[in-house]
Amino acid sequence: MRHLLSIDDLDRTGLEQLLDLSERFIEVTHRDIPKVPALRGKTVVSLFYEDSTRTRLSFETAAKRLSADTMTFTVGSSSVKKGESLRDTVQTIEAMGIDAVVVRHGSAGAPKRISEWIDAAIVNAGDGCHEHPTQALLDVLTLRRRRPSGLDGCRIAIVGDVRHSRVARSDVLAFSALGAEVTLVAPPTLLPESLEGWPVSVCYDLDEVLPNIDVLYLLRIQLERQHEALFPSLREYTSRYGLTAARAARLPADALVMHPGPMNRGVEISAEVADGPVSLIAEQVANGVAVRMAVLYTLLGSGGPVA
Amino acid sequence: MRHLLSIDDLDRTGLEQLLDLSERFIEVTHRDIPKVPALRGKTVVSLFYEDSTRTRLSFETAAKRLSADTMTFTVGSSSVKKGESLRDTVQTIEAMGIDAVVVRHGSAGAPKRISEWIDAAIVNAGDGCHEHPTQALLDVLTLRRRRPSGLDGCRIAIVGDVRHSRVARSDVLAFSALGAEVTLVAPPTLLPESLEGWPVSVCYDLDEVLPNIDVLYLLRIQLERQHEALFPSLREYTSRYGLTAARAARLPADALVMHPGPMNRGVEISAEVADGPVSLIAEQVANGVAVRMAVLYTLLGSGGPVA
Amino acid sequence: MRHLLSIDDLDRTGLEQLLDLSERFIEVTHRDIPKVPALRGKTVVSLFYEDSTRTRLSFETAAKRLSADTMTFTVGSSSVKKGESLRDTVQTIEAMGIDAVVVRHGSAGAPKRISEWIDAAIVNAGDGCHEHPTQALLDVLTLRRRRPSGLDGCRIAIVGDVRHSRVARSDVLAFSALGAEVTLVAPPTLLPESLEGWPVSVCYDLDEVLPNIDVLYLLRIQLERQHEALFPSLREYTSRYGLTAARAARLPADALVMHPGPMNRGVEISAEVADGPVSLIAEQVANGVAVRMAVLYTLLGSGGPVA
Repeated sequence: MRHLLSIDDLDRTGLEQLLDLSERFIEVTHRDIPKVPALRGKTVVSLFYEDSTRTRLSFETAAKRLSADTMTFTVGSSSVKKGESLRDTVQTIEAMGIDAVVVRHGSAGAPKRISEWIDAAIVNAGDGCHEHPTQALLDVLTLRRRRPSGLDGCRIAIVGDVRHSRVARSDVLAFSALGAEVTLVAPPTLLPESLEGWPVSVCYDLDEVLPNIDVLYLLRIQLERQHEALFPSLREYTSRYGLTAARAARLPADALVMHPGPMNRGVEISAEVADGPVSLIAEQVANGVAVRMAVLYTLLGSGGPVA
Repeated sequence: MRHLLSIDDLDRTGLEQLLDLSERFIEVTHRDIPKVPALRGKTVVSLFYEDSTRTRLSFETAAKRLSADTMTFTVGSSSVKKGESLRDTVQTIEAMGIDAVVVRHGSAGAPKRISEWIDAAIVNAGDGCHEHPTQALLDVLTLRRRRPSGLDGCRIAIVGDVRHSRVARSDVLAFSALGAEVTLVAPPTLLPESLEGWPVSVCYDLDEVLPNIDVLYLLRIQLERQHEALFPSLREYTSRYGLTAARAARLPADALVMHPGPMNRGVEISAEVADGPVSLIAEQVANGVAVRMAVLYTLLGSGGPVA
Repeated sequence: MRHLLSIDDLDRTGLEQLLDLSERFIEVTHRDIPKVPALRGKTVVSLFYEDSTRTRLSFETAAKRLSADTMTFTVGSSSVKKGESLRDTVQTIEAMGIDAVVVRHGSAGAPKRISEWIDAAIVNAGDGCHEHPTQALLDVLTLRRRRPSGLDGCRIAIVGDVRHSRVARSDVLAFSALGAEVTLVAPPTLLPESLEGWPVSVCYDLDEVLPNIDVLYLLRIQLERQHEALFPSLREYTSRYGLTAARAARLPADALVMHPGPMNRGVEISAEVADGPVSLIAEQVANGVAVRMAVLYTLLGSGGPVA
């Protein structure tokens, strides 16, 4: 594995190896000094063309815990403003001797194009409406830790704006690869135009699926997109697709709730559910650091033991 | 001590222990390699909802000298813009395994609320018009180093916009706790509406107090607040409350002048005084790093020797 | 050497010693762990009053590879916005115990003034239309590595907006000091008003010089300055001074092409030439890190071996 651009880069075995390695790093993060020298002397640059402090901090925490040096390149303060092309920007970064570039970009496919231009390892940290593979990895890791028997046969509903969600795309691939049965739940306007080839079922009615699922994965409603009028109003969305306490009570007893963050409390999820015992949201964030350590270690490490 | 939210969290003994510890770190900062491994593997995040490079750099320098990892979370580039609540933001930061959060926030009480939500150590780096405890600590440390006999009986005048000053609030508490006699000097419009419970005297006339004080502490006039028309004009303010060279000449021979920075030269303090021998301003900044090392060490350290 | 403010601070011997030291650091950057402990415990602050992620990352990479701690002070998030003077800002930074300040500033002479106010080492990372000495150092290093016989007699044409270019000023000094023959090529409006004392020839016609030079150094056209109407149009500029593939074909067989970046592809240089074998552009960026390591090491190191 030279880059992590898409969950499709990994088969089931590759996915499981990354998850097993992530478990090793969860153990590291619980040590008194949660650092290993594995990537000492390596430099990881965060190249973020869209704001995301949450994802950037998670990657930088991961890199620092591997003893790598980190630097941030945000578009607001860059020569991008001076009209430099993406290609020249990344070739310049590489020429400085950077080992890995963590890329967040508004255009689907940007990380892949970058990987064709330079030799450094590229990690896709979200590209347009395409993919967000480390989010999917931390999601499957979080679920697997709660289901020692694995994800085979696990019934997962992904609810919300699937159409514009890179998280949904990556999660569908990862959940399916590990044997889960995925149902997309959304109004037709928030589903992709074609689902050909997606290994999923579709349901327009959240209340119908509630009693028969093991995991409810709620997507973030991107309020900044609301002018596109994909649904009549937030209140309407919440009344049909929001996970209220009343709806949560209709889930099976051992069902779990996930959300990639940041949450719109009171829109796609009620505060009561978000903070309640069925919510895996904090675990998802915590596991994100370990997963990103595993990814960086795999891409940049010498292959030796984690130590 | 689990957090540093207010000077009120510390009694006189607690204050003096922190100051003694700060002296140890002043010694560290004078070494050829001014670093100790005390906080290796700890991560300190600066969560700044208001700009303050000066305070942020001081905390980050302190953290790095203790061998901690540091990360910055500024509101401009964060999911806060996406509408995430303060609570979700800090719970996310904590879930990544952060050990301490240094918080600057425009609302009084924000750091305290955060400390109720998460387990990480919280350091108040300025909250609204409420407090700025590390500023007060560095101020008393700076004074104590100049007065080996201590602050008992030391006559300190705090001059300026006390009403909106978190520095003034924290300084009054710290100076008083160590036995100093504090006088607030300002026009009535710049004093708090009620001073009930404040261990201070009040005087509206700077010229009256000048001959009888040991320390003149000048607050910054926040020019961005001037539209509130709390005084007729800057020139008027300077003519009545600015420390000109003429006024400085009327101070007792061994009086000292302090300012928390950044200064408005020619407004609350003349350049001649700011750069003169009575000014402790550069010492305040230098001691700020040592004080913040002491605070982070106390909150996150194992309790072992400084080394 | 206490500061690096201008190429004029260095005589030929001084220049060559810095270049020799840079070669040592090129060797370091090729190691498995490209770090040396030389500046452990030192702190380097980037004080950037103008955006330049490219230059800032290069300096920070250099500092980290010397094991120094780095911090960034950008004007957008600083007390500068609150009206603090440059002098107070840098005195504050120094009081925190910083060892070196890397300064980018819009005003010619700002780094020199700073060096008069504080004791920390100052590195000029570009000041107005004055100088950019580390750019010149990396340029001569890059050329010297390609010409083992040295720069004596090397015919270099610097093409473009010399008038507003700090790179041109520093490069003229460095190239000349090492024995090269420099020709400035530009329309009269883009040349300095007076060239008295500049050790250069001038030519208004790029096509005339093409067959008789060893190195073509293309300056960036600063599109943001175009409203000043220094030339009729970009297309006109490109037609007369742009290095198209056709023009490149008329260069001597072993001629080399340089550019300080970021490039305007299709304006001062065609993509074909920029990415072709005569282009040293990526080498310039790579050598920039080594040169900046050499500068920081010279200013802050103990004088011991590089290790």
